[in-house]
Amino acid sequence: MSYDIALIPGDGIGPTVVDAALPLLDDVATEHGFDIETTRYDWGTERYLDAGAMMPDDGLETLESHDAILLGAVGHPEVPDHVTLNGLLLPIRKGFDQSICKRPAVLFDGVDSPLKGYSGGDIDILVFRENTEGEYADIGGREHAGFENEVAVQSAVYTRRSTERIVRAAFEAATERSGHLTNVTKSNAQAHGMVFWDDIVDEVSEEYPDVEVERLLVDAASMDMVRRPDDFDVVVCSNLFGDILTDIGAIVTGSMGLAPSANIDPGRDHPSMFEPVHGSAFDIMGEGVANPLATVLSGSLMIDHLGEDAAAADLWDAVTEQLADDDAPRTPDLGGDSTTKTVASDLADRL
Amino acid sequence: MSYDIALIPGDGIGPTVVDAALPLLDDVATEHGFDIETTRYDWGTERYLDAGAMMPDDGLETLESHDAILLGAVGHPEVPDHVTLNGLLLPIRKGFDQSICKRPAVLFDGVDSPLKGYSGGDIDILVFRENTEGEYADIGGREHAGFENEVAVQSAVYTRRSTERIVRAAFEAATERSGHLTNVTKSNAQAHGMVFWDDIVDEVSEEYPDVEVERLLVDAASMDMVRRPDDFDVVVCSNLFGDILTDIGAIVTGSMGLAPSANIDPGRDHPSMFEPVHGSAFDIMGEGVANPLATVLSGSLMIDHLGEDAAAADLWDAVTEQLADDDAPRTPDLGGDSTTKTVASDLADRL
Ligand SMILES: CC(C)[C@H](C(=O)O)[C@@H](O)C(=O)O
Ligand SMILES: CC(C)[C@H](C(=O)O)[C@@H](O)C(=O)O
Repeated sequence: MSYDIALIPGDGIGPTVVDAALPLLDDVATEHGFDIETTRYDWGTERYLDAGAMMPDDGLETLESHDAILLGAVGHPEVPDHVTLNGLLLPIRKGFDQSICKRPAVLFDGVDSPLKGYSGGDIDILVFRENTEGEYADIGGREHAGFENEVAVQSAVYTRRSTERIVRAAFEAATERSGHLTNVTKSNAQAHGMVFWDDIVDEVSEEYPDVEVERLLVDAASMDMVRRPDDFDVVVCSNLFGDILTDIGAIVTGSMGLAPSANIDPGRDHPSMFEPVHGSAFDIMGEGVANPLATVLSGSLMIDHLGEDAAAADLWDAVTEQLADDDAPRTPDLGGDSTTKTVASDLADRL
Repeated sequence: MSYDIALIPGDGIGPTVVDAALPLLDDVATEHGFDIETTRYDWGTERYLDAGAMMPDDGLETLESHDAILLGAVGHPEVPDHVTLNGLLLPIRKGFDQSICKRPAVLFDGVDSPLKGYSGGDIDILVFRENTEGEYADIGGREHAGFENEVAVQSAVYTRRSTERIVRAAFEAATERSGHLTNVTKSNAQAHGMVFWDDIVDEVSEEYPDVEVERLLVDAASMDMVRRPDDFDVVVCSNLFGDILTDIGAIVTGSMGLAPSANIDPGRDHPSMFEPVHGSAFDIMGEGVANPLATVLSGSLMIDHLGEDAAAADLWDAVTEQLADDDAPRTPDLGGDSTTKTVASDLADRL
């Protein structure tokens, strides 16, 4: 078996973490008798600054033939984020119908939480974030520029198809896990979009009578991710709310450097994309100290998605083991002083 | 001098905390030689369940003649939040042009933060939240109900007038405080509404050359409120983002029971409204243990707004002193076992 992966290392620390993760993917592949072929696409802000576009016009067509995509990071201090993101990351999520974004937030053994009273093993959340529409819909504009009556509109769009997909994926996961699902909306203030969302959750919940559904408003949920993160298990929410809650999830579980993510096309018509939750972190670019673990864990989610669950579990377990080992190297975000490479090669030894 | 205050105790613990705060307002008023006259409006969900509406049709007209409004809480487990909130709280904010929502998040001396390494005095944030539009605009709807192609739309609206107002209020506060302002948007994903917002911030910033502006995306800001809350001073953001960030601010500073808020009409054409950030908390209703301090602090913001700064400062200081006193009574949310009444009467003794 051979899998054909598109690599988009991207901006800032993106290439550093992708290059560190790749040999580890190869290692588990060899161990489990499959191959990982990669094609590297040097798309990103450098390309934009040279050629005026983050990726070629036929970028999506080019990616289409691959089995999956591994992405590093996108974003550059010199170019507005809405230019870089709308030029590369968001078109892939949307263009490849990746309506399911799956983001684990796990407080691993051996990792410190910034929250009092929490230690390794206490937090294990899985967020299902709608990933192609909602508050990220590219609909809106401005009128009366510069005049007193100037106004800007930004419309959020929720379709039955995408909403059902993400909600169903979350119920499936809740069935496999604790049977508890937290549905996060802002229905008290957004009666058009969010009440629709709640209605879909109610509808789908009839198919899953054994799953207990808790409803939280996004403000309360954000607070509760700090106050009682151990009470959360599976969470389902819209694009924007997932964006916010998974950043809070990443920080309460110790570091943005540990948070992986999967952008999945549930129809499997297009390649799915795997990426760390962190950004391009230009402040530490070139220092060789970026934490590669979020990318390694994203790689684990990728091969799991490709059907190689045993290999995926080995990779995940190696990370778990490393983090639990007091003597193992750690990057500065985890309080250590090791480099990206040292952490990766220690992982290789464990595999 | 006499001020004519409308009281809306509202639902759940609302009446408990309003009744506890009122005598304290009277005390400082007497001390400082002014009067507080109150008219009580028993509007809320009980009224809705009896009479089909949260407030009378001419509710806003009735409130209009008052100098200010003190509100307890709105929301009821048996009625959908979008019904209760759109029936009472939101129409006042919108109808009275209260575009400035000011919410301090202070970690008082003597109060425990759930964050490691933080103790009393370390956090002092002032959030300026746009309060009448943005993501809370009541614009949108559904089409194709029940069909495969069903879709819901919820439009956010940002006007130059309201955006300038909130941004200018934040710059004014930043000038008086540290000269640092954090502007929180989601411009990378919402290029229509949020880039407009950033443009207004840039425009207004030219009037305040001494204020340093930091830009943060809402996901990063939510994370940073947990990772480095001591770095924030004045924050400006939209309605929804302010909703989320102030709940995070409340929890990292120890309790929702301590977070006050002011909903201000900067034009002073209509009464402004003051309310604790917490909700109606039906889980503890009737137990007499709700923390009255958020309402007391809201009362302090109210009399400050009315021009009684010295009295406002006395009230605020009494709360500060009580919290700093290890032997003072505390409600359960702060780890104590005292009642609402005990806490209030201890405060009265300090005044
Ligand atoms: C970079 C940005 C557009 C993106 C998002 O908002 O989805 C990021 O924050 C994420 O969470 O993957
Ligand atoms: C009750 C609700 C509508 C309200 C809001 O979202 O503004 C509340 O959460 C707040 O922060 O005052």
